[in-house]
Amino acid sequence: MKAVRFVETGRPPEIVDLPTPTPQAGQILLKIAGAGVCHSDLHVLDEDLGMKGPFTLGHENAGWIAGVGDGVEGWNEGDPVAVYGPWGCGRCRTCQTSAENYCENHASIPTFGGGLGSDGGMAEYMIVPSPRLLVPLQGLEPVHAAPLSDAALTPYHAIKAALPLMTPEATVLVVGIGGLGHMAVQILQALTPAQLIAADIDDGKRAHARELGVKHTVNTRDGKRAAEEIRDLAGPRGVAVALDFVGAQPTVDLCAQVVGRNSRLTVVGLGGGTVHYAANNPPYGCQVTVPYWGSRTELMEVIALAAAGRIRADVETFKLDQAVEVYQRLREGRIQGRAVLVP
Amino acid sequence: MKAVRFVETGRPPEIVDLPTPTPQAGQILLKIAGAGVCHSDLHVLDEDLGMKGPFTLGHENAGWIAGVGDGVEGWNEGDPVAVYGPWGCGRCRTCQTSAENYCENHASIPTFGGGLGSDGGMAEYMIVPSPRLLVPLQGLEPVHAAPLSDAALTPYHAIKAALPLMTPEATVLVVGIGGLGHMAVQILQALTPAQLIAADIDDGKRAHARELGVKHTVNTRDGKRAAEEIRDLAGPRGVAVALDFVGAQPTVDLCAQVVGRNSRLTVVGLGGGTVHYAANNPPYGCQVTVPYWGSRTELMEVIALAAAGRIRADVETFKLDQAVEVYQRLREGRIQGRAVLVP
Amino acid sequence: MKAVRFVETGRPPEIVDLPTPTPQAGQILLKIAGAGVCHSDLHVLDEDLGMKGPFTLGHENAGWIAGVGDGVEGWNEGDPVAVYGPWGCGRCRTCQTSAENYCENHASIPTFGGGLGSDGGMAEYMIVPSPRLLVPLQGLEPVHAAPLSDAALTPYHAIKAALPLMTPEATVLVVGIGGLGHMAVQILQALTPAQLIAADIDDGKRAHARELGVKHTVNTRDGKRAAEEIRDLAGPRGVAVALDFVGAQPTVDLCAQVVGRNSRLTVVGLGGGTVHYAANNPPYGCQVTVPYWGSRTELMEVIALAAAGRIRADVETFKLDQAVEVYQRLREGRIQGRAVLVP
Amino acid sequence: MKAVRFVETGRPPEIVDLPTPTPQAGQILLKIAGAGVCHSDLHVLDEDLGMKGPFTLGHENAGWIAGVGDGVEGWNEGDPVAVYGPWGCGRCRTCQTSAENYCENHASIPTFGGGLGSDGGMAEYMIVPSPRLLVPLQGLEPVHAAPLSDAALTPYHAIKAALPLMTPEATVLVVGIGGLGHMAVQILQALTPAQLIAADIDDGKRAHARELGVKHTVNTRDGKRAAEEIRDLAGPRGVAVALDFVGAQPTVDLCAQVVGRNSRLTVVGLGGGTVHYAANNPPYGCQVTVPYWGSRTELMEVIALAAAGRIRADVETFKLDQAVEVYQRLREGRIQGRAVLVP
Repeated sequence: MKAVRFVETGRPPEIVDLPTPTPQAGQILLKIAGAGVCHSDLHVLDEDLGMKGPFTLGHENAGWIAGVGDGVEGWNEGDPVAVYGPWGCGRCRTCQTSAENYCENHASIPTFGGGLGSDGGMAEYMIVPSPRLLVPLQGLEPVHAAPLSDAALTPYHAIKAALPLMTPEATVLVVGIGGLGHMAVQILQALTPAQLIAADIDDGKRAHARELGVKHTVNTRDGKRAAEEIRDLAGPRGVAVALDFVGAQPTVDLCAQVVGRNSRLTVVGLGGGTVHYAANNPPYGCQVTVPYWGSRTELMEVIALAAAGRIRADVETFKLDQAVEVYQRLREGRIQGRAVLVP
Repeated sequence: MKAVRFVETGRPPEIVDLPTPTPQAGQILLKIAGAGVCHSDLHVLDEDLGMKGPFTLGHENAGWIAGVGDGVEGWNEGDPVAVYGPWGCGRCRTCQTSAENYCENHASIPTFGGGLGSDGGMAEYMIVPSPRLLVPLQGLEPVHAAPLSDAALTPYHAIKAALPLMTPEATVLVVGIGGLGHMAVQILQALTPAQLIAADIDDGKRAHARELGVKHTVNTRDGKRAAEEIRDLAGPRGVAVALDFVGAQPTVDLCAQVVGRNSRLTVVGLGGGTVHYAANNPPYGCQVTVPYWGSRTELMEVIALAAAGRIRADVETFKLDQAVEVYQRLREGRIQGRAVLVP
Repeated sequence: MKAVRFVETGRPPEIVDLPTPTPQAGQILLKIAGAGVCHSDLHVLDEDLGMKGPFTLGHENAGWIAGVGDGVEGWNEGDPVAVYGPWGCGRCRTCQTSAENYCENHASIPTFGGGLGSDGGMAEYMIVPSPRLLVPLQGLEPVHAAPLSDAALTPYHAIKAALPLMTPEATVLVVGIGGLGHMAVQILQALTPAQLIAADIDDGKRAHARELGVKHTVNTRDGKRAAEEIRDLAGPRGVAVALDFVGAQPTVDLCAQVVGRNSRLTVVGLGGGTVHYAANNPPYGCQVTVPYWGSRTELMEVIALAAAGRIRADVETFKLDQAVEVYQRLREGRIQGRAVLVP
Repeated sequence: MKAVRFVETGRPPEIVDLPTPTPQAGQILLKIAGAGVCHSDLHVLDEDLGMKGPFTLGHENAGWIAGVGDGVEGWNEGDPVAVYGPWGCGRCRTCQTSAENYCENHASIPTFGGGLGSDGGMAEYMIVPSPRLLVPLQGLEPVHAAPLSDAALTPYHAIKAALPLMTPEATVLVVGIGGLGHMAVQILQALTPAQLIAADIDDGKRAHARELGVKHTVNTRDGKRAAEEIRDLAGPRGVAVALDFVGAQPTVDLCAQVVGRNSRLTVVGLGGGTVHYAANNPPYGCQVTVPYWGSRTELMEVIALAAAGRIRADVETFKLDQAVEVYQRLREGRIQGRAVLVP
């Protein structure tokens, strides 16, 4: 079968021919319907993140079960499923709660997941090491489900942890209305009644937010003015929850300036910014956090949201052969919505 | 190997010889250190609960791993473990959070767990169907760990759900200081600063509560007087959390009379009582619940509490051969603490 | 000024002339914009609930501040406000959290609130005993705000406590789409992504639910069939949250039959039904509760929801003079939406 | 009456004679039993924090009600009470939940509280502006209650927010076993079963922690070695909750190095340190926060803990006349436990 492979840091991905794998005891063989092409793969390709190649790329995967190893019960050939991405030890207390994204033993595990150290989904078939990592699709189209396992799960996890703060009179700010941010505004509208502000430097992305139903958008080009506009909308309480999907220094600073006391500032974007937190700056009682991906049950909830039509990712499909070109277009900012490779 | 078997409803358990089982793919073979003898086994033996015999009894089990099937990773021969008792489907959202006690597919599963429809731990060896059901003992003696998997886990689960109500100025009432109740008072003292009242009809059990550090004990023989004493101790707010480990009509009624508004009444004991809840009786905002066992991560927490010396079960050990006699003594109320069968 | 008065149990209300009251130190004089006419007033008029007459009726009130007593700071004449209805001691820990609906000292307080033992809002003016009981209207029309202080606050409180259970793949059932129930379905759609089922015996009310955006409606005339339809929609997990705004025995029983394990059954309607809770029936882990009204901060959140256009009550206005006639129409089921008396 | 006054930034406090104040409508006159002398007063005296003098110092106050203004109900002369310190607007949603420490309108309020912009408790009498700021002492000695209103409330608030993370198998680290830290270790032992590590640079303070029942103490003089010792104790999960009562750069950095994923790092001490939070450093899912003081209901809980004998502050009493000397000793680190001025 054809597969898109990470070889080593700094080298472009390669498309190679591999034997179709066979599921061992406890494993599942998945026929891939689609594998999302994610920005973070560029980090994987360019930087030494401790992942040892070669391995097949693709950490946003969905498809149909094509075979099960000995001892796998309750799953059948043909079942459409999404694959949960961050693979933990499965045994620690945190993994047992389904939050393998925070596995307590991550330091001693040689992989971050399929496509992130282990063979992922940019191939015709993929091995999933345990059925605990599968989520049924509930009628959702597999090609549309694939990118949700990261691009929707990551903002969903960030939002869910902040839900108790997002009461009807509170204000939530989303900075960056790109791949994850445009999922975030959909999720927020499905889950909370809080006043929503979408901020972006790009006119088209703010327009996209408005199309998705957001009433208040703010241009972040002039940071000082943006902060004033946001403060005017939020009132004396300030922003209760700020979600930064850019994570560059200017956006992180903007968030720190507009959150109120007893708030939450969540940085999801890996834009290189740092939150500097000293007494009352950000204000007292603000909780600053940089979350990572999401849990298995949160992926179930994301799939349910999508199956109910409450959220959707704009998907552009490509062939496996086009992987190198797609990564290049991603690098140049020439992908609209989410690129999905379809074998 | 020798095994204590449920044959059919209404018949006493039988001790038989069985071949030692072999772990299939995904399974674990456990050498049993101890299997707790639980009151609820009398229900299993006497009533038709939908469990089809024959099967080996024993749902409170601990021991050492003696073999692993294909595909089981991260566990080694000799590892001392407790076995999580309520076996769910393992796939539903609730099981994925580790709460198999509330498995969404329980209605379509032919067993309640090992010793409850499947072969349990009253034998020299036992098959555990998945490593997700194992909890490492953290240095705890396996014979002492076995009964914790039910007698401590069940009250722990009931208590944990009520924790937010048990603030320092609140009052918590434990009714019934027997097998589960005497674990409950230990757990409560480890987890909460709330004022604790222990109530029992039996002088010895109230004395036991006082030995365990409980300051306020109430005799429940005269229900009306007991209610008055409890109300005096609790003050105008009333009891914030009532935990009934008897569950008979008089104890349930006592709890309903002393809880305040915005409280929680938890019935754990299967004594045949019914809570009748109509407007403001129990008071408005009371949450009435009948929980079942506990979750996998709660068992991890219970083991940690015991390993730290914060809780302990009084254990009396017996040989497998004595099983029939032990059940008889249990039936007659002649077991002090917890009986554990040691192969 | 004119006022609608409760005189004694079993007697119809009377319209009398009273001197306009003067606010004492710490009090507020409110010029009434509207006072909602609530079903529960019929209980007040007909049954001995321990409220000693005479007093002015009306416990759903909004208007404008017309005067403040000495020591009242931060409030000005003309400020439009809603009045929080259940008046507690204001000093106990529960009142300090704003949940005066569960005041710990309620047994020693001679009133339930304005219109419920103290003078209420069916008059030109009303005394509010403390500014802590006022909620600013945030631009909302006072006549529309009045009924929200009960008809929206009560379901809001019931729903808010159940929010963590209402995840995207969960099912929530609302039984009774009348005054409170039709607010509940609006609140649920604003706050949760859970699958919503609206059940009622009345064709018109189910149609109303569909107009409000509810996709699944169930006819409760045949209880057995209703249970089957609900179970089919909810799947194996069963209903996660059931909210009964009727509270009669058949609706309570219906809810108890369809909730799953680890669920919540909330009875709001005072229809005389009783939940009988014994082991596993309703299923294990179900929390049964009968809440009362809501908290001060929840009223703030309700007002914010309404000001944002997310919920609205259909209001029919009447003159104070028509009070006796309005109560009669309410008794006969001839009020559509919410009747509000406008002085 | 005699009073200890802040005059202006940079000037030592002055002891002057003032007329005894009279409570206006809505106010309470308190006869002071004791006023704690707090380290943060040195900031008040030395730095421009926006508090305009002159005013009477003392923000940790307890005593007996000596008079009530018009409209104050439910409180009587002679009632022993503690005074809640951070005075908010009392009207915003946050104040209505009792968390005036995070008042939404703090920016437009000219005072931080009694002794912090308004007249405080270092005098024979003090005016408390509203009864909502009083907490009954439940039998506790007023002189011992005074310092609890800050030195115990502040760590209590920090701990309470982190409670869900402090499960039995988790590790909590307290850095700095001084005035607030030694209260924290007592509170933690009353509220949580988590493994507790107390860290300090000072041998005497670590010994104090051990006297208070802490099993594991770590010397922070060598930061690298301290981190290793803590990591060894915490195991692969790392520290779940780190509470830094020093807040200097080395202690903040130590905490950031030892917390695990999905943890909480709370900086309480105002030692001038900054947490720099970028991707995965501190680890992903860590929540960093700098809380401020506590809420009214939390003070109620603190008083209950102390009245039950679960926590106690070591108090050294001084006369009002000695205030200048006491501040000097505080500055020089020559106060053991908590200094309380007794008029």
